[in-house]
Amino acid sequence: MQPRARQISSPTNSLLKVYRRALAEGITREGWLAVEGPFLVEEALGAAPAVRTHSALIAASALRKFPALMERLPGEAEITEVPDRLFEQLAQTESPQGIAALVELPGRSLDAILKGRNVLLVVACGLQDPGNLGTIMRSAAAFGASAILTLSETVSPFNPKAVRSSAGAIFHLPVLPGFQASELLPRLRAEGVRIIAADSHSPSSLDDADLKGSLAILAGREASGLPPEIAREASASLSIPIRPGMDSLNVAAAVSVFLYEAARQRGFEYRMFSDSVNQ
Amino acid sequence: MQPRARQISSPTNSLLKVYRRALAEGITREGWLAVEGPFLVEEALGAAPAVRTHSALIAASALRKFPALMERLPGEAEITEVPDRLFEQLAQTESPQGIAALVELPGRSLDAILKGRNVLLVVACGLQDPGNLGTIMRSAAAFGASAILTLSETVSPFNPKAVRSSAGAIFHLPVLPGFQASELLPRLRAEGVRIIAADSHSPSSLDDADLKGSLAILAGREASGLPPEIAREASASLSIPIRPGMDSLNVAAAVSVFLYEAARQRGFEYRMFSDSVNQ
Repeated sequence: MQPRARQISSPTNSLLKVYRRALAEGITREGWLAVEGPFLVEEALGAAPAVRTHSALIAASALRKFPALMERLPGEAEITEVPDRLFEQLAQTESPQGIAALVELPGRSLDAILKGRNVLLVVACGLQDPGNLGTIMRSAAAFGASAILTLSETVSPFNPKAVRSSAGAIFHLPVLPGFQASELLPRLRAEGVRIIAADSHSPSSLDDADLKGSLAILAGREASGLPPEIAREASASLSIPIRPGMDSLNVAAAVSVFLYEAARQRGFEYRMFSDSVNQ
Repeated sequence: MQPRARQISSPTNSLLKVYRRALAEGITREGWLAVEGPFLVEEALGAAPAVRTHSALIAASALRKFPALMERLPGEAEITEVPDRLFEQLAQTESPQGIAALVELPGRSLDAILKGRNVLLVVACGLQDPGNLGTIMRSAAAFGASAILTLSETVSPFNPKAVRSSAGAIFHLPVLPGFQASELLPRLRAEGVRIIAADSHSPSSLDDADLKGSLAILAGREASGLPPEIAREASASLSIPIRPGMDSLNVAAAVSVFLYEAARQRGFEYRMFSDSVNQ
């Protein structure tokens, strides 16, 4: 046992209630993200810019299983040890690994993001599947996107399944949720960001388009696509050329292809830096 | 009610047992695929080459809800009507829509597939997540792949979740499961198919490689990648250039990007045909 860890054994302890709710909902009322499992906790600890770790909850067996990870928990974090069975009762994963944490993502403003050169944004519009949104966050971080924004009516990027599917990407790119399309899109245009709608019915092909310069890729739901009032705010709509008779790609696969094509046209410029271009 | 439909109301009827098991496992002992929901049944009926529909199970309310689909069920299919509550008991989807069918995919041989020009194969090696495999099938069909093959130790492409994630693609490209790597890979090489391993650690970039001609894209598990004895059978291993410090893409996103890049280099040749190039 860590000398720092406080021990709790009562299932009615209020901290456990906070964790139970946070792990189910993904985020606390204070806006702290709840992460579970050694992989995500490690990603949080390695985030750049750094996240603040408010507290960590550790099952007794995990204290012995992850000694290196225990060492890395920052001094500011309040660490609490619980019996394995209590941890399992509040865990949300299928095979609980005995570690969870509440972390505070750094505040990010769209203003600051838009000050960058050759901004590359993803705007998720109405997506409902958290796994798809998480996969999109992962691809966005991998392809050097400046940020991912979501419109209202979109599943929360802090949904636990979205965070798990992001495989830690949520700690590596700014994620700004809950914009109103009627405010965001005119603002992007005013800042010189071209809005490119991903639309499987568009006659214009992704590979023929110029994807250099500042742009936002706007992606809607697979079944219904983008609402017309949002689609018409785009300066172009593009499709991925697929076999006639095939309907469309999975939305996360499609956005990944859009991001790849944009990164390819930009010469994968992040390759030239030893560190991230976004931070 | 359709005059053709036989009615069953006993929960112990043997056909219901067959359907319950088939919908849970995805495929019957005879090798018939079990599909549930109007979307997948419709995709099956529209498959090219055609699938044989052995039987359909319809909840009473669905007979009225999907009259056009009922009309399209072929004469060969044995149609059975059941009370809604019995259908709900055996359905595997969260919101059962009252229609399921057992269909027989056409027999496909690797011999016949390898006779094609500029063959484009996907070989799934050890993937465990059926959703990812289904998304890969969907992208493979969309980008004109000739077939998808799976090695043993890989989740079944006929797993119900894989079939749902394929969004009907399983009816639009040959799916051949269960190969032994030690037999398949030498055979592909002997037939002039270049084997390209997707490997996020490779120093060779996807965008620098020549992806024309006959090739097979070999994709492994996200966490462990390709086993060394399989990876060394590849004639090249390629990575997608991503931001330094980022780990990798979701495997279905990565394979989709590989397929897009291959299709791009081949000039999206399927665009020039009004019908599929694979049939």
